Amino acid sequence: MEAFSDGVIAIIITIMVLELKVPAGKGGDTLAALKPLFPVFISYIISFVYVGIYWNNHHHMFQVVKSVNGAVLWANMNLLFWLSIMPFVTGWMGENNFTKWPIILYGCSLIMCAIAYTILQTVLIRHEGRGSLLAEATGSDFKGRVSALIYACAIAVAFINPCISFIMYAVVACIWFIPDRRIEKRVINDEQ
Amino acid sequence: MEAFSDGVIAIIITIMVLELKVPAGKGGDTLAALKPLFPVFISYIISFVYVGIYWNNHHHMFQVVKSVNGAVLWANMNLLFWLSIMPFVTGWMGENNFTKWPIILYGCSLIMCAIAYTILQTVLIRHEGRGSLLAEATGSDFKGRVSALIYACAIAVAFINPCISFIMYAVVACIWFIPDRRIEKRVINDEQ
Amino acid sequence: MEAFSDGVIAIIITIMVLELKVPAGKGGDTLAALKPLFPVFISYIISFVYVGIYWNNHHHMFQVVKSVNGAVLWANMNLLFWLSIMPFVTGWMGENNFTKWPIILYGCSLIMCAIAYTILQTVLIRHEGRGSLLAEATGSDFKGRVSALIYACAIAVAFINPCISFIMYAVVACIWFIPDRRIEKRVINDEQ
Amino acid sequence: MEAFSDGVIAIIITIMVLELKVPAGKGGDTLAALKPLFPVFISYIISFVYVGIYWNNHHHMFQVVKSVNGAVLWANMNLLFWLSIMPFVTGWMGENNFTKWPIILYGCSLIMCAIAYTILQTVLIRHEGRGSLLAEATGSDFKGRVSALIYACAIAVAFINPCISFIMYAVVACIWFIPDRRIEKRVINDEQ
Repeated sequence: MEAFSDGVIAIIITIMVLELKVPAGKGGDTLAALKPLFPVFISYIISFVYVGIYWNNHHHMFQVVKSVNGAVLWANMNLLFWLSIMPFVTGWMGENNFTKWPIILYGCSLIMCAIAYTILQTVLIRHEGRGSLLAEATGSDFKGRVSALIYACAIAVAFINPCISFIMYAVVACIWFIPDRRIEKRVINDEQ
Repeated sequence: MEAFSDGVIAIIITIMVLELKVPAGKGGDTLAALKPLFPVFISYIISFVYVGIYWNNHHHMFQVVKSVNGAVLWANMNLLFWLSIMPFVTGWMGENNFTKWPIILYGCSLIMCAIAYTILQTVLIRHEGRGSLLAEATGSDFKGRVSALIYACAIAVAFINPCISFIMYAVVACIWFIPDRRIEKRVINDEQ
Repeated sequence: MEAFSDGVIAIIITIMVLELKVPAGKGGDTLAALKPLFPVFISYIISFVYVGIYWNNHHHMFQVVKSVNGAVLWANMNLLFWLSIMPFVTGWMGENNFTKWPIILYGCSLIMCAIAYTILQTVLIRHEGRGSLLAEATGSDFKGRVSALIYACAIAVAFINPCISFIMYAVVACIWFIPDRRIEKRVINDEQ
Repeated sequence: MEAFSDGVIAIIITIMVLELKVPAGKGGDTLAALKPLFPVFISYIISFVYVGIYWNNHHHMFQVVKSVNGAVLWANMNLLFWLSIMPFVTGWMGENNFTKWPIILYGCSLIMCAIAYTILQTVLIRHEGRGSLLAEATGSDFKGRVSALIYACAIAVAFINPCISFIMYAVVACIWFIPDRRIEKRVINDEQ
């Protein structure tokens, strides 16, 4: 199952770059022709980091998982579905210069991904048992709660100033940049 | 062989999202610009679920398979071929607002996928032997027969009311949502 | 190395379907709108079969390979390069209704793939040794020589009647449809 | 982790071919219609070789790696990010006929990839330890330093004659064509 998820996430993270459409024709080879692509590039970077974070945490989580069942498979498909929406919302945000509605939709997608990840985690812990390594390693999921709160605030702020919302999304990305050390400590030598 | 199939299915499920074309230009950042994408999004959801179901069942089936031969390889390629048509028929259905012919073609594709899956299953059982775990676990394939019947009815109904056909496709998706419990029971602890 | 090759081949075989562009707009939901896509669909089928054959034989060949070296890696990259040209020549052939030059270019691509495969095979046999299982199983490569001959004839025939050339390409696909039984016999129980 | 990287690199190397847009419509089936695609094809070849080289070296490097940590994961994501920019800069260079700015941007991307690879290597050696097989096998990284120097020169030369810059990029590709023999010697029998 991890091979399939890895494949889907690898495709999601890579097809986002297709939004960077090559400028061609007369004057297409100047620096000026690249200028309108700059916001698309910025939105590509943040989504690359976000999808990378999800892959990273997904990978770490399944390191300590012993078996899966039907519910886990579908909770995983649900997460992949919301991640697969990322290239679209990324493109919409970038090509429209970070205006209100694209910023709000991007935030909604991040919230849906976060919820889907929490559901997957919950289903896995229920399957593995409360005393399992995963349950222990995940703990109270403080980071997850804080992120959801910031996303919600960012969406509200977007009605006033979408730029601040974007910065808030970037801040959450920084919070998650570091993978879950609690799980990492336990699997560091088992990996690869 | 499963790695290759997983790869192809992962790509199929992900490139479908490319049909959701990013609205750009003047007025492209409003909610109104997203409205025409709504039917495309709905058709994306149902196809995501369908391809997910096929991956799920494919994955479960190959859990109990010990070896493959040339016939199995080509029966598998046949299934992948019909699944690879899904992004096209999904896009056609979504971009034309679920009208008659796109709904009919979508139903035909679902039937072809179902037939291809049945052929693969039959070839595998012949290869593994009638007394094999797979033959035992598959049984009479009641769900498969019912689905084919509903697809055929849905295609006929599309000449009168395509919306009802779409609902019938969604009903079949719900029937298959739960993976084959008979196989799952046997492999639940071997997975991952 | 096989995982990477499998991934590339899986992507090649799947992105070819993107040439089937969804007809939209007024009158886009009629059967008439699908009619111009028919030759594209036909060319997609033959290329799907061809890439499937290459994956199949590639997969069988690496079943009996014990180790690889730098030369093998690059001979493999060379094969993947020519296979990656397939989506382009397939699209060109299908969208231009099987006229002379697209048919010729398609034939040239098939020849380049065949040469690349032969180089890979030769490099592998040199690496594995003349007495190896692979050398023994491959033998005189009769099918490979016949295919190359038919491709060359088909290209020549295209100047008179491109349709006959297309039929010749289809005939070669049929010849290769069955995987190399000599290798298969030896690995049938080791696979999966 | 290698499976994910392999997947991303496989997608990057394959989606570059999508820049070769199929000429259609009246006169689209002539050799003349292919002529404007020639520079795109040339740029595709060089990028295919470059991404192939990165995959090759990445693959060899991880052959001797025992375990990974969070820093390695992110250094790896950083490399994948810069590699994912390759399809864009390749398309820009090819579709604008190797003029000044596209050539410069291509060189910058190559430098960024080289830096990202060096960072990944450094982080891995720090994690594995100075006395590790990887540290020993990598040595002084002479080839890496020479390449970076040539890239920098090529970018400067592009202001005078972009064609010479392109030749310099091709020269570096030739230098790297042969995988790191020092690592290869040690893993040649462990692979596959």
